[in-house]
Amino acid sequence: MPVPEWVPIRDDLRGYEPYGAPQIPDVINLNVNENPYAPSAEVAADIAEAVRIAAGGLNRYPDREATALRTALAGYLGHGLTADRVWAANGSNEVMLQVLQAFGGPGRTALSFAPTYSMYPEYARDTHTRWVTGTREEDFTIDLDRALKLIEAEQPDVVLLTSPNNPTGTALPLDAVRAVMEVAPGVVVVDEAYAEFRRAGTPTALEVLDEFPRLLVSRTMSKAFALAGGRLGYVAADAAIIDALRIVRLPYHLSAVTQAVAITALAHSDELLARVDEIRTSRDELAAWLKDEGHEVAESDANFILFGTFADRHAIWQGLVDRGVLIRETGPEGWLRVSVGTPAENAVFRQSLQEVTR
Amino acid sequence: MPVPEWVPIRDDLRGYEPYGAPQIPDVINLNVNENPYAPSAEVAADIAEAVRIAAGGLNRYPDREATALRTALAGYLGHGLTADRVWAANGSNEVMLQVLQAFGGPGRTALSFAPTYSMYPEYARDTHTRWVTGTREEDFTIDLDRALKLIEAEQPDVVLLTSPNNPTGTALPLDAVRAVMEVAPGVVVVDEAYAEFRRAGTPTALEVLDEFPRLLVSRTMSKAFALAGGRLGYVAADAAIIDALRIVRLPYHLSAVTQAVAITALAHSDELLARVDEIRTSRDELAAWLKDEGHEVAESDANFILFGTFADRHAIWQGLVDRGVLIRETGPEGWLRVSVGTPAENAVFRQSLQEVTR
Repeated sequence: MPVPEWVPIRDDLRGYEPYGAPQIPDVINLNVNENPYAPSAEVAADIAEAVRIAAGGLNRYPDREATALRTALAGYLGHGLTADRVWAANGSNEVMLQVLQAFGGPGRTALSFAPTYSMYPEYARDTHTRWVTGTREEDFTIDLDRALKLIEAEQPDVVLLTSPNNPTGTALPLDAVRAVMEVAPGVVVVDEAYAEFRRAGTPTALEVLDEFPRLLVSRTMSKAFALAGGRLGYVAADAAIIDALRIVRLPYHLSAVTQAVAITALAHSDELLARVDEIRTSRDELAAWLKDEGHEVAESDANFILFGTFADRHAIWQGLVDRGVLIRETGPEGWLRVSVGTPAENAVFRQSLQEVTR
Repeated sequence: MPVPEWVPIRDDLRGYEPYGAPQIPDVINLNVNENPYAPSAEVAADIAEAVRIAAGGLNRYPDREATALRTALAGYLGHGLTADRVWAANGSNEVMLQVLQAFGGPGRTALSFAPTYSMYPEYARDTHTRWVTGTREEDFTIDLDRALKLIEAEQPDVVLLTSPNNPTGTALPLDAVRAVMEVAPGVVVVDEAYAEFRRAGTPTALEVLDEFPRLLVSRTMSKAFALAGGRLGYVAADAAIIDALRIVRLPYHLSAVTQAVAITALAHSDELLARVDEIRTSRDELAAWLKDEGHEVAESDANFILFGTFADRHAIWQGLVDRGVLIRETGPEGWLRVSVGTPAENAVFRQSLQEVTR
């Protein structure tokens, strides 16, 4: 429902709807790239115990700098990172908002390559940053010559690269990151929300972080750590870049409870990441099956697969919903995106897709 | 440490430091208006159990609309409010940021009356909203004639009133709210972060909420609910105003854990609010003692007291720190602000202040 005329909302927000994927009750959710494996009872109990201890001091404000959490995140990332080079917020979308508050804003430009994550234009809108998109190739890779020319022409203050890219699953070679860093005049963020799902041999931009002070690599605990409900995104960069984010962060933005939950989940990395290997295997099996069925399948280093193309993708999406499977109608016209579920969920999806397409 | 030259931060942010009260280890903290009473072991255990249950589903995104929490908050506020008229975020500072994102921004103006909460100008800066301040009278009340003239002259899109005001403790009469609503062309926020501590007979703007569709009343669980570490702020308004905030909110901004913790704390309202009565009594006793000692004392409806005046307030502040008591050097020149602690903490403060001032 649009906001009524009498509400004095900004003119540039009038007519917008709140962002969010459609939600349908009582279906198999393969629509928002969640990890299908819930934390174990043991992990849940450890989280509860950490929160019980934190709750005894909840009358006090939390550690404004989240030092223990940032230390744990740095340890998890490795690559010689330390707490002063890591920043955390309530989901990677709060990290991205802070990046655009600090480095974007009125009179400044952010640039990405479509199709890509559909929240990016909202971050730009909410921070009054001019938003420019280049386009990806037919196979969803980025043509480096075209990309560099666009960056040189637009002189963006913020470049948002995504690896693996959402919704296509496409990873970005390190040569591309290096080449972009050479010409980009501002900061460059490589959004690695799905990095843990990448295939063997696919790099992470963390490997070149020390070479480029204006490079930021963002991650999230929502996916590999099965913590979408805990809202914890983070970013690694030069300590001076982190200091810039600290100027625009709201004080005490991360609750003591969020910090305790995330630290506990990180302590269970081994168990949580073991599931990642299962998901990668399921992803590769599902991609192979979709190809066997005659579909086009985008190469995926993530926990989802973009496949198509369909003359009427909405009919396919609806047919799956009718069979109790919710996937996402997103990406270029004719394509659909399915998150990788448990083997049982994937089997229902395969069966349903066959019914809908035959 | 200032951000180095090579960091491409916005020019208007250069030279700023991250906001935050000075922190000193191993002192009695009477500096950030925290509730001195920690949640009981029973409340902490209930919070932990709620989180254990929530943790079993943390692989999924949280309820984007936080409907159960907003229902509980509406029930707590009373006044016939319902979930669609209440909005919640990570602390009232995220609520205020969302208000200025939706109703302020480039080309728009926000107005308040100084001395008031020191974060307001930062919200304005971070949303590129022009910031205008009127001034309060010598007794920190707002002169209505002068206020209305300023509002008519400036035509602010957002008026921020604060009742009780921080750092002065001054409450705002409902006649003033009504008069401001008659002339203000945009939204008016009455920030009632400390409302539960108000003295008998002091009103809340919730009483007139139904009369004015462009009125918002914000609250927090940080103070009366002893949940500063849990980060939960909220606001009551017309449902259409809430819908406007939903357009600029980050999706899934409130974690499933935060929602579970806040709902559990609300279920323990009686226990937590019983402590509020003790704090109000301590506040009135401390104010009377400060007057007896010959200090000027601002009338306070909050859980803190502004007192003075001192030719060298920093020396008084430092003298207290040297004796293990941290208060806040804030407010108009010559004044200091002390949060109301436990009776034992207040006794140490009184003893220390006598030593420092004699």
